[in-house]
Amino acid sequence: MNCLLLEPDELDPRTGRARISGRRRQHAEEVLRAGVGDRLCVGLVGGRLGRAEVVSLDRTDLELLVSLERDPPPKRPLTLVLALPRPPVFRRLLSTIASLGVARLLVVGTARTEKSFWQSQVLRPEAVRERLLLGLEQARDTRMPELEIHRYFEPLVDEVLAPLLERSRGLVAHPGADRDCPFDVDEEITLFVGPEGGFIDHEIERLRGVGFEVVGLGARVLRVEPVIPLLVGRLFR
Amino acid sequence: MNCLLLEPDELDPRTGRARISGRRRQHAEEVLRAGVGDRLCVGLVGGRLGRAEVVSLDRTDLELLVSLERDPPPKRPLTLVLALPRPPVFRRLLSTIASLGVARLLVVGTARTEKSFWQSQVLRPEAVRERLLLGLEQARDTRMPELEIHRYFEPLVDEVLAPLLERSRGLVAHPGADRDCPFDVDEEITLFVGPEGGFIDHEIERLRGVGFEVVGLGARVLRVEPVIPLLVGRLFR
Repeated sequence: MNCLLLEPDELDPRTGRARISGRRRQHAEEVLRAGVGDRLCVGLVGGRLGRAEVVSLDRTDLELLVSLERDPPPKRPLTLVLALPRPPVFRRLLSTIASLGVARLLVVGTARTEKSFWQSQVLRPEAVRERLLLGLEQARDTRMPELEIHRYFEPLVDEVLAPLLERSRGLVAHPGADRDCPFDVDEEITLFVGPEGGFIDHEIERLRGVGFEVVGLGARVLRVEPVIPLLVGRLFR
Repeated sequence: MNCLLLEPDELDPRTGRARISGRRRQHAEEVLRAGVGDRLCVGLVGGRLGRAEVVSLDRTDLELLVSLERDPPPKRPLTLVLALPRPPVFRRLLSTIASLGVARLLVVGTARTEKSFWQSQVLRPEAVRERLLLGLEQARDTRMPELEIHRYFEPLVDEVLAPLLERSRGLVAHPGADRDCPFDVDEEITLFVGPEGGFIDHEIERLRGVGFEVVGLGARVLRVEPVIPLLVGRLFR
């Protein structure tokens, strides 16, 4: 936790005071070794970043005097379209994706997405939100990525991706691609990362049909967990 | 496991036959659903890649008829110098690093590397080798990254890094850097990734002193697990 994030209802905007308990209080005490008078990096979920002085810290509550004076870092101009991976992988990836500054995440189903994954507890809104917050705390960001879940591929392509590709460049990572993934682009990107077993031919044809470029990452077959930061590092400064 | 790797003593080079048991046999049966007559991607550890036909498969052994006809993918011209991270992170990173095609890995101690990490079982040579092999199987590679462990920073800099920087470009990822990390370089790189709490000032000065460029990744503070693929994706095609 490089920045302690406050929920809007935890901060009194008149006095600048906030009182928190639970995981964040415990982290401040045990990991950050905070004491009265110390200053911590804080942010308001959805709002600005700043610093807070520890006013009091006891076994249940941490009281802070907060001053928010700067904007969070900009998001990357990236919509990531991700075939739902195995639940433990998805859980870790949510924090990574938030920390990387992905602006928008569409979690989708494809032919090779295992149906049982959709029943997982990790998809519950409160579980997703918690993992995204951990990523924001890591990266010193306050703004949640926009998140949508689209279980079915065909309506996703027609209703969401086709309009999106009228105002962004679409890239789909796939072995045997036409060309390598570009470096350091200066435009809005929609990036589709497929499931562990890859896309089926029909899906690649459908994506090409609405304007996706099929791009590759060389001869190595990589797991989805390293592929996402690898692509973000390649595409954006 | 996208490629089943054979140890040299498992393959009879005269007949092209190999007999394996344990994890790989089980994976072939249960995940790949292999049966007699099926063909699998195989490789020889340290050698070539190819295909194998399943000759027999029973509850203990998998027998293969192997034909090795192509070279593994080239390694990236990268020496990664990594401050030893927390053991569970290191364990996962070993597979990722092998899958990414890092040519050489130096695992090192810095001022903020926790001393207790050096006692971990994950550093045992057989544990390290197993994790690297999993990464090679994932990426369809056969060649292990070279690995060295250097516990002390000062002799590492003088005896290893200074000579290395006479024939490679040194980059150290650090917040508040002089410049952004470059994209798509076409040269031999030595990349130093620090510990969770960052480098101390003296370390950065020492690394600058032997020729490292200090490069940044923007305002976001990222964990070491995504940072490594992010940097590999940025630096290399």
